[in-house]
Amino acid sequence: MTGIRQLADYLDISIGTVSRALNGKADVNAETRRRVLEAAEKLGYVPNQSGRSLRKGSTGVVGFMMQTGPEINSQGDAFFMSVFDGVQTVLSRHKLDLVALLCSSNEDPYAYLQRTVARGFADAIILSATRRNDARFELLHRHNIPFISLGRSLTDVGQPWIDLDFEGMAEIAIERLVKAGHRDIGIIWPHGDLNLGYVFADRCREVLAEHGLTLREDHIFRAKPSEAGGYAVAHEIASRSPRPSAIVLVNEILVTGLYKGFEDAGVKPGKDIAIIGRYSPQAQYLSPALTCFTLSLRDLGISLAEHLLSVIPDYQSHYVGQTPRVIWPMTLIEGTSG
Amino acid sequence: MTGIRQLADYLDISIGTVSRALNGKADVNAETRRRVLEAAEKLGYVPNQSGRSLRKGSTGVVGFMMQTGPEINSQGDAFFMSVFDGVQTVLSRHKLDLVALLCSSNEDPYAYLQRTVARGFADAIILSATRRNDARFELLHRHNIPFISLGRSLTDVGQPWIDLDFEGMAEIAIERLVKAGHRDIGIIWPHGDLNLGYVFADRCREVLAEHGLTLREDHIFRAKPSEAGGYAVAHEIASRSPRPSAIVLVNEILVTGLYKGFEDAGVKPGKDIAIIGRYSPQAQYLSPALTCFTLSLRDLGISLAEHLLSVIPDYQSHYVGQTPRVIWPMTLIEGTSG
Repeated sequence: MTGIRQLADYLDISIGTVSRALNGKADVNAETRRRVLEAAEKLGYVPNQSGRSLRKGSTGVVGFMMQTGPEINSQGDAFFMSVFDGVQTVLSRHKLDLVALLCSSNEDPYAYLQRTVARGFADAIILSATRRNDARFELLHRHNIPFISLGRSLTDVGQPWIDLDFEGMAEIAIERLVKAGHRDIGIIWPHGDLNLGYVFADRCREVLAEHGLTLREDHIFRAKPSEAGGYAVAHEIASRSPRPSAIVLVNEILVTGLYKGFEDAGVKPGKDIAIIGRYSPQAQYLSPALTCFTLSLRDLGISLAEHLLSVIPDYQSHYVGQTPRVIWPMTLIEGTSG
Repeated sequence: MTGIRQLADYLDISIGTVSRALNGKADVNAETRRRVLEAAEKLGYVPNQSGRSLRKGSTGVVGFMMQTGPEINSQGDAFFMSVFDGVQTVLSRHKLDLVALLCSSNEDPYAYLQRTVARGFADAIILSATRRNDARFELLHRHNIPFISLGRSLTDVGQPWIDLDFEGMAEIAIERLVKAGHRDIGIIWPHGDLNLGYVFADRCREVLAEHGLTLREDHIFRAKPSEAGGYAVAHEIASRSPRPSAIVLVNEILVTGLYKGFEDAGVKPGKDIAIIGRYSPQAQYLSPALTCFTLSLRDLGISLAEHLLSVIPDYQSHYVGQTPRVIWPMTLIEGTSG
């Protein structure tokens, strides 16, 4: 087992310096800290757990709160598995573990989090499924539990957040469709009261307005976040009069159903109706391949963890200079659907 | 807040009886226990947490161990979200919480579990991604931690397990294909060293043998558990000489890629090659609709939790008469792919 002494021998620096670097003291220069952390990872350094657990309230665990249920989170779950992988990459540098705090869809997320906090389960928390107004932020803030939210909210207690660039997605998608001659563009509203729906729809409206176009209220469609929901909404869109000539959607877990629904309704995707959506593992294997927005979920996870650690006293000196709020860009993959 | 007194008043039985029912004492009859638990759920009964936490080692938490990583678990993750929902339905009756213990693909599952055990993180554990030989069983057994495995293994410490009926799937799929005239049937091997691969392939061989047919070694194909893996293996199958006329696969997260791969290779699914697989949210929206095996994941989760609780002293009296090992049946959905 590699301890501090072995690390110091390997790097040929003093045990004191290694210790200060590992513990994030400010008097170690950045290059030395980087070398120590790299060596610690390479050699499989194991901190003295008994010493560590003496720190008051330290569990060594970071919780990622997410919702389960028959109607799963609008971001899908392949999404989360990849994000988790990135989060763990960072946490493992510090011998911290990640657990997923699974809030059932039957339970109020606030009550669930309250119980989790009372149990002293995790040192820090990552919140997902951010609501337009989100009382969980205030709860964690009151209890002095470091956290980061994946997603913005109107609620703001000064915590870091990272959100996907739904505004940028709206801009690029609408501009692309307008340029291709579309004048009547509809959107599928994301599930429920998630904040991203408002952000996305507002920006679509603004960009359309710049071209003298409007987002008709009856061209904002609602779908359940499932393939069955996609199938159903396709029929609804196909029968709407007037019918939009293009659709933009942010939910990636209903596209196979959407395609099939359009086909069964005699509306050919990519030909009779343009579609722009979000990347999913299926996107490029659909016919026509989906024009969609993508991002590295693993990198997003890494960034979430680094931003979270930047607000935890024990670790923050490793992660100085983090921008507290990040709009995470997405990249367009050109398919043939729109 | 509903306590024991409110429950007793509501049911018009003594506080002592309610308490004994809630605590699973044997001297309460089954019908009374059922009424008490139902009322407790209906009225939102909250046990006296301070009393409960006095029980030695009780965390109120059940852990579900799963693996994350860029190559996610072969069972996909939409799978897990639905299973979790069922598990939580049962745990919430007893005010127990479920957390997902996320073992990174970079880490040895045994070492990960060892650390989790050392932290005293959970009262009981559900294991997934069961290996052909699985040392995690022995670890939990040594530490007297109640657990259940989703999946069989050659390792057996007498714990309960539930496994999907991959043998039944093999039988029904092979019989169906043979009846349709197929003589040269191939399979796609599940990812890695998961036990289910051996169970499934062995039964396919046996059923084929009953018809005087064989499973050719060069008709056992290997694919990465992803749509890209499905796309790649389709090309491999299409160019194999002789080419099997039918394919059976247990992995549900590569079918869209598989279809597209066959199409791009000029082999039409359902026409030039028969395909039988596992249900996924996309299955019925593919063209042709996938003939596939399905199960209620929520019910599976409920059963996992009930079997687990049946081996935990505090709860087992509520769950007497559970069969310790269950082969979970799957149902065939007839599509047009095979």
